[in-house]
Amino acid sequence: MKAFEQNIRKVEPYVPGEQPQGQVIKLNTNENPYPPAPGVLEAMQNLEAHMDTLRLYPDPTSDCLVEALADYYGVEKERVFVGVGSDDVLSMCFLTFFNSDKPIFFPDITYSFYKVWAELYRIPYECKAVDKDFRMIKEDYYGENGGVIFPNPNAPTSLYEDLEFVEDIIRHNQDVIVIVDEAYIDFAGHSALELIDKYDNLIVTQTFSKARSMAGMRIGYAIGSPLLIKYLNDAKYSFNSYTMNKTSLVYGTAAVKDRGYFDETIHKIVETREWAAEEFAKLGFVFPKPSGNFIFVSHPDYDARELFEALKAEGIYVRYWGSRRIEQYMRVTVGTRAEMETLFDFLRKYIADRG
Amino acid sequence: MKAFEQNIRKVEPYVPGEQPQGQVIKLNTNENPYPPAPGVLEAMQNLEAHMDTLRLYPDPTSDCLVEALADYYGVEKERVFVGVGSDDVLSMCFLTFFNSDKPIFFPDITYSFYKVWAELYRIPYECKAVDKDFRMIKEDYYGENGGVIFPNPNAPTSLYEDLEFVEDIIRHNQDVIVIVDEAYIDFAGHSALELIDKYDNLIVTQTFSKARSMAGMRIGYAIGSPLLIKYLNDAKYSFNSYTMNKTSLVYGTAAVKDRGYFDETIHKIVETREWAAEEFAKLGFVFPKPSGNFIFVSHPDYDARELFEALKAEGIYVRYWGSRRIEQYMRVTVGTRAEMETLFDFLRKYIADRG
Repeated sequence: MKAFEQNIRKVEPYVPGEQPQGQVIKLNTNENPYPPAPGVLEAMQNLEAHMDTLRLYPDPTSDCLVEALADYYGVEKERVFVGVGSDDVLSMCFLTFFNSDKPIFFPDITYSFYKVWAELYRIPYECKAVDKDFRMIKEDYYGENGGVIFPNPNAPTSLYEDLEFVEDIIRHNQDVIVIVDEAYIDFAGHSALELIDKYDNLIVTQTFSKARSMAGMRIGYAIGSPLLIKYLNDAKYSFNSYTMNKTSLVYGTAAVKDRGYFDETIHKIVETREWAAEEFAKLGFVFPKPSGNFIFVSHPDYDARELFEALKAEGIYVRYWGSRRIEQYMRVTVGTRAEMETLFDFLRKYIADRG
Repeated sequence: MKAFEQNIRKVEPYVPGEQPQGQVIKLNTNENPYPPAPGVLEAMQNLEAHMDTLRLYPDPTSDCLVEALADYYGVEKERVFVGVGSDDVLSMCFLTFFNSDKPIFFPDITYSFYKVWAELYRIPYECKAVDKDFRMIKEDYYGENGGVIFPNPNAPTSLYEDLEFVEDIIRHNQDVIVIVDEAYIDFAGHSALELIDKYDNLIVTQTFSKARSMAGMRIGYAIGSPLLIKYLNDAKYSFNSYTMNKTSLVYGTAAVKDRGYFDETIHKIVETREWAAEEFAKLGFVFPKPSGNFIFVSHPDYDARELFEALKAEGIYVRYWGSRRIEQYMRVTVGTRAEMETLFDFLRKYIADRG
């Protein structure tokens, strides 16, 4: 090793889900099977007519997008922070809010990036084990800590906790920042945004990558008290003043404005999910009650890794981790009804072949 | 102050240049006065026809853009890293490469973000004073350090140092990483990319925001040894696996491919710069020899802040900092010939009015 290599920061990188190209059934990264709102196409055509504006820096305050989100949720603009996907937003939140010597708390089965950011920023952390049904135990979050973060619905389990549960954790942690990561809330139930006026230590994060069909545009946001949002913006401006490019501001704004299309898309996905859950059950799969746009399934008779590989060989991509406690589970995104039919045709055959 | 506020990381935010809207002459953030390459329009139309693909995550490896850059510069793909503007790239470089207890070195008059990142990541640093003509003194960079970074041409001075000077600094610092920030190199002279095979501790960063007319798309890149690029990617994947959105990959790739348009645009800007430098000189302004797409001017008879405010009142935006050693200087971006004529008309009148 050369001398200059000694001081390079070595990081164990997060491995994102595969992004296979070509004709496959892609149920592995919880994307939306439906296209973005029709208004986005119009926004693309408008921007095309002004493509010369791409030579200029985008608005560093992301004003149009912040305003559209503030309008949508009926909150003040000062309560909204936007970033390059909710990963960017959450990473900024870790850096800004989890700055104590005490450990932050999050579930042991959860979004795998939490651990990566904690290690990257050298934030002490403690993982609280979910119970045998993958439920968080709220009393585990009462102890002294440097902050709390959990997704609701949780990933990859798809389990949703009601607002009473969420509020209980916030109420017991008013001296630290509590982040509720709601990437999948639109498929589930009540958002913790309903608690935002009551608790000024609460941050709720959401994304355009799931319910809004825009994973390709990388847009996420956080809503909280104006004070917390100000601290987040101060940190963000120090990294990079212009993180949101012109297209994400313009196309993102168009996507937020079409409430009707948004509601309709979610309705279709939830309908497909409920039907798919029944089909999985008929085939003997077990799974926690799904509340995201994905189902976390296991089969008592078939090895999850083998099944995952068999699906992949058929061009059907689902997500498999093989990590502790979830070795026998796969996460299956809810695609279109047709995509799911193809999946179930294969599963029926797979099971029949094995008797 | 509430208890939860104690542990929030407080950062002194960088203040970006103003982004005024409406009919102004914008010579304050070194944007290119010419539109992006015509191929970008075609790429926009193509993507429009496939807008449904925005629902999918972008390629996390940014392969098409990395390949286009590798082809352009005649290097292997493993030597190219892309990010959300060169600010994102440089910030990742600070985090990854400047991980020693020894101070990193950079000039006292330089890009103001270096100090911000060093403080954000708690990297010790020493600023080396440029001489009275704003030139870096290369011997100042010979001492023991944790890394070196400097822009070439430097900002906001617009001074270019030849490759012999750059190589001398690299040669004296082979045990640490040396970053040459070449945001403005295309307007100047030889790039340190010519040294990339010879020194495996060298990182060269460039951007799409200046010579490539795409500040609005936020694209920057670093080129270095495959080992250094691997470390950068590991760190980047830990923050956010999908930083480059679909549009920046597609439009950026189109922009790189049109070498003819790129050369032509640069030629026009350099021509305008040379003419504008003569005009400034005729009016009694002094300035270091400009090598970027901007000129760093001062006038012995007129206060820089007053002149800056007078220009702004006319709708002509230039950049003024008022910070130590450069209180009497303004940075003027080279716009179109017509924009510069308007600037000089005003300056002639301003001087005449004051006798």
